[in-house]
Amino acid sequence: MWGIELQRESGSGIPLSRQIYQQISRSILDGVIPPYEALPSTRELARTLGVSRHTVSEAYDMLLAEGYVCSRQGAPTRVVDGLRLERAAGGPARDEDGTYTQAGVGAETAVGGYAADFKTGQPDLRRFPKYVWTRLQSEAFSQLALEGLGYGSPDGYEPLRKEIAAWLFRSRGIRVPAGHIFVTAGATQALNLLADLLHREGKEFVIEDPCHPGILNLLRNRGFKYRPAPVDEHGLVVEGAEALFRHESGNGDGGGISAVYVTPSHQFPLGGILPANRRIALLRLARENSFYVIEDDYDCEFRYGGAPITPLYALDAERVIYVGTFSKTVFPSLRLGFAILPEPLHQRWRFLRMYADVQCPIVEQAALAEFLRTRKMDRHVSRLRKIYGRRREALLEAVKRRFGRAVLRVWGDNAGLHLALQFAEGRYGKDFSRKARKEGIRLSSVNQYSIARRDQHMDKLLLGYGHLEPEEIRSGIDRLHDFWHRGLPWI
Amino acid sequence: MWGIELQRESGSGIPLSRQIYQQISRSILDGVIPPYEALPSTRELARTLGVSRHTVSEAYDMLLAEGYVCSRQGAPTRVVDGLRLERAAGGPARDEDGTYTQAGVGAETAVGGYAADFKTGQPDLRRFPKYVWTRLQSEAFSQLALEGLGYGSPDGYEPLRKEIAAWLFRSRGIRVPAGHIFVTAGATQALNLLADLLHREGKEFVIEDPCHPGILNLLRNRGFKYRPAPVDEHGLVVEGAEALFRHESGNGDGGGISAVYVTPSHQFPLGGILPANRRIALLRLARENSFYVIEDDYDCEFRYGGAPITPLYALDAERVIYVGTFSKTVFPSLRLGFAILPEPLHQRWRFLRMYADVQCPIVEQAALAEFLRTRKMDRHVSRLRKIYGRRREALLEAVKRRFGRAVLRVWGDNAGLHLALQFAEGRYGKDFSRKARKEGIRLSSVNQYSIARRDQHMDKLLLGYGHLEPEEIRSGIDRLHDFWHRGLPWI
Repeated sequence: MWGIELQRESGSGIPLSRQIYQQISRSILDGVIPPYEALPSTRELARTLGVSRHTVSEAYDMLLAEGYVCSRQGAPTRVVDGLRLERAAGGPARDEDGTYTQAGVGAETAVGGYAADFKTGQPDLRRFPKYVWTRLQSEAFSQLALEGLGYGSPDGYEPLRKEIAAWLFRSRGIRVPAGHIFVTAGATQALNLLADLLHREGKEFVIEDPCHPGILNLLRNRGFKYRPAPVDEHGLVVEGAEALFRHESGNGDGGGISAVYVTPSHQFPLGGILPANRRIALLRLARENSFYVIEDDYDCEFRYGGAPITPLYALDAERVIYVGTFSKTVFPSLRLGFAILPEPLHQRWRFLRMYADVQCPIVEQAALAEFLRTRKMDRHVSRLRKIYGRRREALLEAVKRRFGRAVLRVWGDNAGLHLALQFAEGRYGKDFSRKARKEGIRLSSVNQYSIARRDQHMDKLLLGYGHLEPEEIRSGIDRLHDFWHRGLPWI
Repeated sequence: MWGIELQRESGSGIPLSRQIYQQISRSILDGVIPPYEALPSTRELARTLGVSRHTVSEAYDMLLAEGYVCSRQGAPTRVVDGLRLERAAGGPARDEDGTYTQAGVGAETAVGGYAADFKTGQPDLRRFPKYVWTRLQSEAFSQLALEGLGYGSPDGYEPLRKEIAAWLFRSRGIRVPAGHIFVTAGATQALNLLADLLHREGKEFVIEDPCHPGILNLLRNRGFKYRPAPVDEHGLVVEGAEALFRHESGNGDGGGISAVYVTPSHQFPLGGILPANRRIALLRLARENSFYVIEDDYDCEFRYGGAPITPLYALDAERVIYVGTFSKTVFPSLRLGFAILPEPLHQRWRFLRMYADVQCPIVEQAALAEFLRTRKMDRHVSRLRKIYGRRREALLEAVKRRFGRAVLRVWGDNAGLHLALQFAEGRYGKDFSRKARKEGIRLSSVNQYSIARRDQHMDKLLLGYGHLEPEEIRSGIDRLHDFWHRGLPWI
C-alpha cells in the first residue's frame, strides 16, 4: 500500500514506525499522495504491512504532530494541502562514508609527516607530563561541585583566575588583580573578542608589518580596516612613524585608531624586543590619542639568556591589554589563554563573550588551576626553557656548519620557539616554501608575513625549532641545505 | 643608593635582581634618574645594597635588554633619553585581593540560591553520571595519540564527528555525512559563526518574535540587522507573512535576507512544533530567494509523547543548517555542540573558526565520542526523558491545584525543559520577574523575549522545570502562588 517497503532486519536501525512515517511523509512531499487524501485506517495499513496496529498508530502520530495530516473528530485523517516540495538537487551523497580529509586552513595546523618540520609555534608535546595531567584532570573534575557542570561565568573559573594572577607575579613580577583576568579559549579568542570590543566604526587597527597571521586574518574576517606599521630588528618602529599612531594619519584618510597590536617581548616573526624608548613613545601616543594597546605575549616564557622581559602592561595597566596563552607552556589543544582588561572594558567584554560561546569548558580550567597551584607549571616551564635553549644552540650550530657565510645574520632575540635566517642573497617567497614542502621540508619565509611592505624580507627564512630534538634539527638542516643548494635559482 | 629598598624575606617572591631592575626602571620612567645618567658599577651597587655582583649584573642585563640603558664598549652604561612617562592615574588597585563577584550577564548564568528556581534551559546535573564521565575522560585522554595535544582540525575531532553522525541516525533517523558535521563550543558558538558566515552587507536576518535571546543578542553585538517574524502556537508564522521572507519585504526598506533562524521542533519560548505546511512554505521561500535556514534544535531530545520531531534538515540538506547542542544532554560547561553545513559553506566556516578560537579542546571531544560510541548517551537521555516527563506532569498538576482556572492555557508541546502558562488576566513584564526574584523566585515572563511585538505576551509566564525534583516543583509553585496572590495589582 502506497509503495511502503519496510526493512525488517533489526540491523537497519530505524524503527518500523519511523520507516512508515518517513515513506508517507516523503510521498506527501513528492506529491505522490495528494492533498486531502484520507489515510487508510490503522487496522487496514497494519494488516497490509504485516505490522502491529500500534506501530502504524505511532507513525500516524508523528505525521499528525508534524502537521503532514490533520484529523477532526468523526472524520478520517487527511493529508494537509500545500506540502509539495521538489527534492533538493544535490545534497549530501547518501553513500558517502563521512571520511573527511583535511584541506585548506585545517591542513596548516595538522601535525604533518615532514622529514624536516620547521613549523613555528610548536611546543614539544613529547615533553609534556601527560600522566600527571591526566591525574590532575580527573581529580579536579571529580572534586568539582555539581554547579561546576552547569553554566558558569563568562569571566572564567574563579580559582583559575587567582592562580593565573599568582603565576604572573611569580614569573613576570607583575601584580594583576584576579578580577582583571579573563580566561579565553587561547590567545586567538582573546584577540578575536578584542577586535570586536575595540573596533570603532571607520577607524583602523594598527598592526605590525610583518605580523602574526592570527590578528591579520581575524581583522580581515571581520572586515575591519588596519594600518600596517613598520618593524625592524627591535620590533615595532614608533619614532619617525608617529603619524601612524595618530587619529589623523597624514594619509588624508581622515580615519582614527581603534587600537594598536604589538608583540613587544618577542616580535613575530622578526624576534626583536621592543626597547624602552619605543614603549614609552607608544604609551604616550596611546594616552594622547586615547587608544588601547594590545600586547600579545605569545611565547614570553622562553627566554634563554637573562630574565623574562617585563610586559608593556607593567607600565600602564589602564592603556595596555595583555594577552597570554597556555598553548606553548601546557599544550595547544588545551585551548586556554587569557586577557587582562582594564575595568572600563569588563562589562562589554562579558556581554560579547556570553554570546560568543558563553565560557571555556570547566575541566581544563580546573586542571590548569591545580597545575599552577602545585607549581608543576613552574617546574615544567623551567625544564622546557633549558631544553628549548639547547635546541636553539643546536640549530645555530647546524646552520653555521652547513650554510656558513651564506647566512648573513640570525634575527631574533635569544628567546622563543623560532628564529629567522637572513641570507646573503636569495629570494624566498611562497614558491620556495611550496617547493620545499614537496621535498618534505616545512618552513616559511618571513616575507609570507609581510603586509604592505611586500618583498622587503625576501632574504629571510623562518625556522621553528621548539618541537624538534637536536638530532632532528641537524638532519632537518642537512635536508634543507641540500634542497637550498640544488635549487640555486632561488639564490 | 638611588633609593633602592630590597625586600629580603624569601616570602616576598620577587628575586632581588628583579627588585633592583623594577626600582631603577621605575625611577627612570618617573624622571628621578635623568637621561644620560651613568649607572654605578656593578661592584659599587652590589656593595651598597649588600648583594652579590651577579645579582646586580642580572638587573643591569634586564635594563639593557629592555632598552632602559645602553652601553658602548669602553664607556659606562647610561640611561637612554626620552623615557619619562607619567604614572597612570588609576589602574588596578594594588591591595585588591582579586575577589570578584559576578554581576550583569554573568549572574544570569550562575546557579542561583533561589527558593523557587524556574530558570529555563537547565538540565538536572544531579542525574549526570559524573563518575562514569570522569573515567571516560581519563581513558580517552590517556589513550590519545601525542598529536592530539597539538593543534588539531577546526572542523572537530574526527572520531567525534563520526559518532555524532551515528547518533543523529539512531535518535532522529537522519543520515548526515560525518564530513558535514562541524563541532563547536556549544550551539552559541555555532550561531555566532553562522551569523558571520551568512551575513550579507545591508541584508537582514529573519528571527522569531518572541525569540531565544542568544541569537538576538549576538546579532545586536555584531550590529547586524534583523526582521522579527510573528510566532503563534504552532511556531513561526509563514503563510500570510511571506513578504518577510522575500528580499523585498514590502516595508520599502529595500533590503534582502541574510538567513532565517527558526526553532521548528520546539519553538522558544512558546513551545510550538512547526507544522509541515509551514516547513514546506519556508523551504520554498528559501529556494526562491536563495537564503539559508538555520534550524536551532536546542532540546529536541526531550519529547514525552510520541517520537522525536524530524528535523527540518531532513527535508532539504542544501538549504537548512542544523544546529545541535550537548549542553542539555550531557552538561552545559562541557561546551560542545555542532552545526551541519552544506558543502559550499565548509571552506569559509573553517577559516572563520580558525581565527575565532582554532578548535574545541580535545579532552571533551574524545570523552564525548566514547560516551556516544558506547551508547551511554542513549541510556542517559532515555532515563532523563522519563524523569523530565514526570516533572512536567508534576508541574502541570501543581499549577492546576494551585492556580485552578486562573491559568487559561498551557503553551508548549509535550516536550523540552520549559512551558508557558497563559493567565486569564495579568500583566507580567520585567517588573514582575524582578520583584519575584527578590522573593526568592526565579522565572521570566514570555514578554521579556518579545522584540517588535511588545506587550503581546504580557499574560504569559515562562517556567523551566527540568532541573527540579517534583517536590521542588510543588513547593516552588506554592511559593509562586503566594507571591502572585499577594501581588494582586499584577493581575
